[in-house]
Amino acid sequence: MDNNIKNKKITSRDEDFGRWYTDVVRAARLADYSNVKGFIVFEPNGYALWERMQQVLDAKFKELGHQNVYMPVLIPENLLNKEAELIEGFAPEGAWVIRAGGKDLEERMMFRPTSETLFSDYYASHLHSYRELPMLYNQWANVIRWEKETKPFLRTREFLWQEGHTLHETEDEARKETLQMLNVYKWFFEEVLAIPVLTGRKTEKEKFAGAEETYTIESMMYNGFSLQSGTSHFFGQKFSKAYNITFLNRENKLDYPWQTSWGVTTRMIGAVIMVHGDDNGLVLPPRIAPRQVAIVPIGTDQQVADKANEICDKLKKVGISTFVDFSEKSPGFKFAEHEVNGIPIRVEVGKRDLAQGFFTLVRRDSGEKKNVALEGDVAAEVQTMMDEMHKHMFEVAKKRNDSKTYECKTLAEVEDIMTNRPGYVKAAWCGDEACEFKMKEVRGTKSRCIDESAHVCKDDKCIVCGRKAKHMVYWGIQY
Amino acid sequence: MDNNIKNKKITSRDEDFGRWYTDVVRAARLADYSNVKGFIVFEPNGYALWERMQQVLDAKFKELGHQNVYMPVLIPENLLNKEAELIEGFAPEGAWVIRAGGKDLEERMMFRPTSETLFSDYYASHLHSYRELPMLYNQWANVIRWEKETKPFLRTREFLWQEGHTLHETEDEARKETLQMLNVYKWFFEEVLAIPVLTGRKTEKEKFAGAEETYTIESMMYNGFSLQSGTSHFFGQKFSKAYNITFLNRENKLDYPWQTSWGVTTRMIGAVIMVHGDDNGLVLPPRIAPRQVAIVPIGTDQQVADKANEICDKLKKVGISTFVDFSEKSPGFKFAEHEVNGIPIRVEVGKRDLAQGFFTLVRRDSGEKKNVALEGDVAAEVQTMMDEMHKHMFEVAKKRNDSKTYECKTLAEVEDIMTNRPGYVKAAWCGDEACEFKMKEVRGTKSRCIDESAHVCKDDKCIVCGRKAKHMVYWGIQY
Repeated sequence: MDNNIKNKKITSRDEDFGRWYTDVVRAARLADYSNVKGFIVFEPNGYALWERMQQVLDAKFKELGHQNVYMPVLIPENLLNKEAELIEGFAPEGAWVIRAGGKDLEERMMFRPTSETLFSDYYASHLHSYRELPMLYNQWANVIRWEKETKPFLRTREFLWQEGHTLHETEDEARKETLQMLNVYKWFFEEVLAIPVLTGRKTEKEKFAGAEETYTIESMMYNGFSLQSGTSHFFGQKFSKAYNITFLNRENKLDYPWQTSWGVTTRMIGAVIMVHGDDNGLVLPPRIAPRQVAIVPIGTDQQVADKANEICDKLKKVGISTFVDFSEKSPGFKFAEHEVNGIPIRVEVGKRDLAQGFFTLVRRDSGEKKNVALEGDVAAEVQTMMDEMHKHMFEVAKKRNDSKTYECKTLAEVEDIMTNRPGYVKAAWCGDEACEFKMKEVRGTKSRCIDESAHVCKDDKCIVCGRKAKHMVYWGIQY
Repeated sequence: MDNNIKNKKITSRDEDFGRWYTDVVRAARLADYSNVKGFIVFEPNGYALWERMQQVLDAKFKELGHQNVYMPVLIPENLLNKEAELIEGFAPEGAWVIRAGGKDLEERMMFRPTSETLFSDYYASHLHSYRELPMLYNQWANVIRWEKETKPFLRTREFLWQEGHTLHETEDEARKETLQMLNVYKWFFEEVLAIPVLTGRKTEKEKFAGAEETYTIESMMYNGFSLQSGTSHFFGQKFSKAYNITFLNRENKLDYPWQTSWGVTTRMIGAVIMVHGDDNGLVLPPRIAPRQVAIVPIGTDQQVADKANEICDKLKKVGISTFVDFSEKSPGFKFAEHEVNGIPIRVEVGKRDLAQGFFTLVRRDSGEKKNVALEGDVAAEVQTMMDEMHKHMFEVAKKRNDSKTYECKTLAEVEDIMTNRPGYVKAAWCGDEACEFKMKEVRGTKSRCIDESAHVCKDDKCIVCGRKAKHMVYWGIQY
């Protein structure tokens, strides 16, 4: 175990948010830079968080009828080339295997940046009849996109993700699936990660290469920047036609199926850090924390140890992930360590307190303490505290989002906001890509999503060109 | 769903074992060939089996104190070159990324064939003191080894696996870990997969590139061929020295730690197929089957459907993975389908049987039927039947192993056995690699492992050269 934890100073997040982030990533042992440029090592705490995310999402996917499969990691160039937009979109970031098994390959192969091509190729040879639809597949995998600038979890050359790929008989069904999965992501962020999100449609410029429509969940970091946190794509029949995927429909005629794909990545770990973390380190939302409760015995009394073990057993019994920290460190050191690691609840068990008939729960986010009587229902107390913590963390983030969301009418306002108090700018837009490019000149502000629920009035003008507006759009600085 | 299942004829395993194998892989929807040569697509049934294997093993690893991490998938050439034996062993099978992000890389990178190099590089910068030892890491990952001949699950260019990597303060501790993990694999094969294994040490010729000692579990397929099914390596201080991994020991002096690694792969799916499968398809050991019980309602009566659902709920409640097959197919078709898929137990619920007060359990391996009274304890009955099935499957495989294990004194005997009734040949060996090469000329017979528990007598002679024997060795034809 790392004995230098107390010396690891974490930069204040208000002083230098970028450094604060990397300090927390290191101090909480989430990840480290590796000697492979642009790649990270997922350390135990970081990988455990990913495993929890996988568990929760995977169970939800399966509940909705999806099955996991696994496609090859390398994609021959000719297969990629069948869908022009996709290859154009990903070629600049591709990593190519050119030599293998001691000789140059006849055809080079790209390390998958995403797997539409392989799923489509598989569908083409396995789909025959409408009776086999829908095909609801998902895969958990590593991908490579050769980014120039990298940052742990947020943007790395290799990352881990899930990519759902589904085929449907009708357009309507595929559209429903696209939105259903968007809502699964929204649910996961809000109800599990305690992160409020915007949901909406990406503009043509920002959508996924090859998609007809891309829907997104966007989350706002502590510093007001936006993070694209999950996407769900409606492909129409684009890939079906490019890869010649056909089926006999109910009228016994050859038809093209309708396709979707949707994914979230290890970037979610970055979102958790940057939405909830504080100057003492990581703060983990209780519903995703791999270890929810750390029990710290104070002193070496047998009575204290017994009580600590008893509490641990009670919590584990109801499925709360708990451990007793019997390591040879001082209680203060342990407190600091569990704090840096973001463990939601600490239980302090001391001899003096026991004599007075209680032990203490301490909440990571607020520092709030609660004494629990020895004969009290510790499982219920911890569960209540975790529920309150989740609710509170969500509210803090929600308030931040609300207070940093601005309605703007001029580029000058946007310039001022993005310079001094960045956040979401809500502004009308004419739908012209040229205006998006002009907006980008203002501190790199990009469209985050089209708010399809927002009403655009007759009088609404595009914030850039002043022409009649088509959409209400959220804009922000992208992480 | 596939409606052609009845038409998919499976070759008899006694007629053509190789074809039988690929027939079962396809018919049970475990995997399919992909358009990427040497790579397979893991289909839902195959991937679900891998997920179950991961669950069981991962829980055991964690119980023993291991933590999961994740290392980069690409390894820069200079990092690989630090340990000469490893790079020599893997270079011929390496796949190289040479171009990425739109330009040629300054240094090419190998797709990991195994990750000793990256773990060692990580340890070198993170280990400082004996207090941090042991470091007990594991990773679940994909690897590439560019094999010439491939066969689904058994030998594919990309496969999935886990690789444990541990660092220890003392040689003794590292040796214990090596054997502990070998025994975990043995436990997993015998108690979970119902596959009896040989355990032993690999010869110098057959050991892992870079290891001081390699231990193996070997299993025997239906046709008598051997499959190396899992390995555990003792590295000594070899990598520590090559990668300059050091720590301050208890005497406050710089020291090199002792290292192990151990792994099992998706090849285990192949072992399950080839040990247990029969001419009707896959037979899944009940403790690993993703779906343990299929309930088939016979007829469309509401009463039948209700009873089927009630049984399903009862089984699920005690953690038995169960589903009711309400699909629009005939009962006979469903029986055949669940049979091909190897589902351990089928429950038949029919109106006439219900009227007579019972329903029926059918065991996949033996076809044995058991009527259960309506008021009977179905969970207990199913659990008992699964336990008996596991025991029986293990015994069948064990008897096969025993009946196909031969003690030989001459190469002529080996030639006869490997030609007419292949299996394990147990024969003494002098320890000379030249004799191993000569043995290989006999039908490709290779040493499987040294039986370290076997006593070599003074009079035992090497089966090849007739000199004094050093070891008792199991030999076999490798899958």
